[in-house]
Amino acid sequence: MEVKVMQDILGQNDAVAGALRQHLAAAGVYTLNLLGSPGAGKTSLLERTLAVLSGEMRIAVIEGDLFTTKDADRIAKTGVSVVQINTSGGCHLDAPMVEKALTDERLKIPGIDLLIIENVGNLVCPAEFDVGEDEKAVVLSVTEGNDKPMKYPLIFKESALTVINKVDLAPYTDFDVAAAREDIQTIHPGALVLPLSCRTGEGVEDWFAWLRARVKAKREGAGKDD
Amino acid sequence: MEVKVMQDILGQNDAVAGALRQHLAAAGVYTLNLLGSPGAGKTSLLERTLAVLSGEMRIAVIEGDLFTTKDADRIAKTGVSVVQINTSGGCHLDAPMVEKALTDERLKIPGIDLLIIENVGNLVCPAEFDVGEDEKAVVLSVTEGNDKPMKYPLIFKESALTVINKVDLAPYTDFDVAAAREDIQTIHPGALVLPLSCRTGEGVEDWFAWLRARVKAKREGAGKDD
Repeated sequence: MEVKVMQDILGQNDAVAGALRQHLAAAGVYTLNLLGSPGAGKTSLLERTLAVLSGEMRIAVIEGDLFTTKDADRIAKTGVSVVQINTSGGCHLDAPMVEKALTDERLKIPGIDLLIIENVGNLVCPAEFDVGEDEKAVVLSVTEGNDKPMKYPLIFKESALTVINKVDLAPYTDFDVAAAREDIQTIHPGALVLPLSCRTGEGVEDWFAWLRARVKAKREGAGKDD
Repeated sequence: MEVKVMQDILGQNDAVAGALRQHLAAAGVYTLNLLGSPGAGKTSLLERTLAVLSGEMRIAVIEGDLFTTKDADRIAKTGVSVVQINTSGGCHLDAPMVEKALTDERLKIPGIDLLIIENVGNLVCPAEFDVGEDEKAVVLSVTEGNDKPMKYPLIFKESALTVINKVDLAPYTDFDVAAAREDIQTIHPGALVLPLSCRTGEGVEDWFAWLRARVKAKREGAGKDD
């Protein structure tokens, strides 16, 4: 019973997600679904990113949270358009929630180059739900331990990129970046792994470069003027 | 549809959990459901705890994980009886899973004073499922940020105790222990908050004392010989 219902839910979700992806592709929007545990640094990474990239491209953010607008408030301070989704306790975003958020006039699609959807802080459930994104990226912080990819493999399998955040704290932990990278690339051959620190800025240029390339390719694919 | 199925699932779960709780109470076992994000330090806290308390009382552990036995392997090294539950990707433990684990002869109930059930690393879903425990405790690490209680309130509302772990890393973060404590006690008046470090051992005596008092009260309630 539970399995059947779950299949129905995922099937309905995937249909909405597929339509969203078409809609966003037609508008030349590159869409990233940003995942990670609570406190991995997803919002901090966004703050760093918007401070630099919002001068180069048109960005919008959708923030997923159970109840509060804490993260959306942080993003709004950067001046970038942000819409909050509250899941009322739900453990992940789904495509219908994103579809509804996209009707918010603040998002102005078309007219956006990069849409980042920050999912609920959770290393399990969000990996199962397509929200119409082009790709998923996951943020793992060194303070979580390098055993996490093997313990929570689906999210690393689904993510084109793993950001290893808080490398400034690595000297105070036993986190082994090489071991984490090896595990991630065993789970997902070809996945990119970028160690960085949102606090110090170390490594963030690689992340910016990755995003710029993604947005450029999408824009060219849509025949969009620069 | 989804809501109705969820109600049915929770109803069935609660019936099994209630029977488990009676069974464990009759045997004088104090049962703790240990929750927290991936990497908050649940298993490290258990390692610290077993090293000290396994000489004073009879302890058993149930380890919940998606796929691996990494945490159960760490616990087994302490010499304490441990049974692994793999959820095959599922985001939480439920009462039927624990009921099945309790049939494992390694757990030897009755004969146990303290049963600790380490749940799947997830700050959302495990809070919704009673697994027959006496109480829940949640581990929050300072590297996750002190905004987490208000962002994930249910788990803090459900937990009698919040362990604030990794206080040795507090100087390298902007975590505000006083603010976290205030938020937790707003969500859950009367909840106990214990800052500690599994790495340095700072504060762990308060946690041991809390567990000792819980086990003693349960044993006396069951009229169990010491």
